[in-house]
Amino acid sequence: MADALTLHEDPRSGNCYKIKLTAALLGLPLATRAYDIMKGETRTPEFLACVNANGRIPVLQIGEGAAARFLPESNAACWYLAHGSTLISADRFAQADMLRWMFFEQYNHEPNIATLRFWLHFVGEANLSEQQRAQIMAKRMAGCAALDLMNKHLANHAFFCGEAVTLADIALFPYTHVAEEGGFGLRDYPHILSWIARVQALPGFIAMD
Amino acid sequence: MADALTLHEDPRSGNCYKIKLTAALLGLPLATRAYDIMKGETRTPEFLACVNANGRIPVLQIGEGAAARFLPESNAACWYLAHGSTLISADRFAQADMLRWMFFEQYNHEPNIATLRFWLHFVGEANLSEQQRAQIMAKRMAGCAALDLMNKHLANHAFFCGEAVTLADIALFPYTHVAEEGGFGLRDYPHILSWIARVQALPGFIAMD
Repeated sequence: MADALTLHEDPRSGNCYKIKLTAALLGLPLATRAYDIMKGETRTPEFLACVNANGRIPVLQIGEGAAARFLPESNAACWYLAHGSTLISADRFAQADMLRWMFFEQYNHEPNIATLRFWLHFVGEANLSEQQRAQIMAKRMAGCAALDLMNKHLANHAFFCGEAVTLADIALFPYTHVAEEGGFGLRDYPHILSWIARVQALPGFIAMD
Repeated sequence: MADALTLHEDPRSGNCYKIKLTAALLGLPLATRAYDIMKGETRTPEFLACVNANGRIPVLQIGEGAAARFLPESNAACWYLAHGSTLISADRFAQADMLRWMFFEQYNHEPNIATLRFWLHFVGEANLSEQQRAQIMAKRMAGCAALDLMNKHLANHAFFCGEAVTLADIALFPYTHVAEEGGFGLRDYPHILSWIARVQALPGFIAMD
């Protein structure tokens, strides 16, 4: 019998949605346990001791009770779920190239596009610290550069690693398709808009909460 | 015959060193081509068109001439090189857990520890913009949190994914072992210091330039 899978999540987080989308596309049952990151629920001593010493969600829990194992980092959790499926390219170069886009997502995309969405849509510009406010323009420019790179790549590819969906698409979809909540206009990126429609049309697709 | 491997790099970059260290531990021949990022040599039209549209190094080039393929993102390049070797855990959970540390490195470690090293050691504090200066304290705290998490994990493990070296160690080693150049004191992290010595003792180990 396969291990029970539980996602420790905040439903507003695109990083959590990646894992739910992967499970949905693969038809895997996935229980969820919700935390409110705005209330510090992932920084409690219990969470730090039992779920993730890094105090962050998402965490994928595999198994239950004393045998449970915990896997932080959204893209690593997607990798675990997609093991042996077509969502991971089998070819050596294609697999590394897929990981390339997943590392790009965590380094160039998420810290700019997801952070601005969090600040502007959830925290509210009026509640930002002076230091956060000072970073908005740099994050805006870096986020636009990431979207521009994606748009150019998608001009010649249906999905990030060719003609079929892989984890690269699942990693990049969540924060891209709600980028307007962070003040990014998607109209300037027509190839991204077409790709969003292709992802939404995948069998098994589920929308973000 | 295996494809020729060429690393497009700046020798001062820890991200480039990861790839050279992976190749060295595996005994793979790797040619290098150096660029000076301080002089904008990775932002030229030629570099953007032929090597990496994202304007960054490292990029691993596989093959030559018209058949050459280019792989950006340091950890993806390490993955390509280590394909089929013991540097990548074969077990499903262990492999995902190894990627967990590699994503942690790009999200929690590199943007704090490597960036402060770049700013303080190479650019110089006097030459930083006001906006960069305003971020120093936040990056200092986040970098210390990353080192603390690593130190606690290494209290019970010889390497990040157990008793043998994997790409998780190779991803985390470069910027950790020179963290003092970014103003981080390593004396507070004794388990990290022991781990650094274990990595340096690996057969085939090469030092950073």
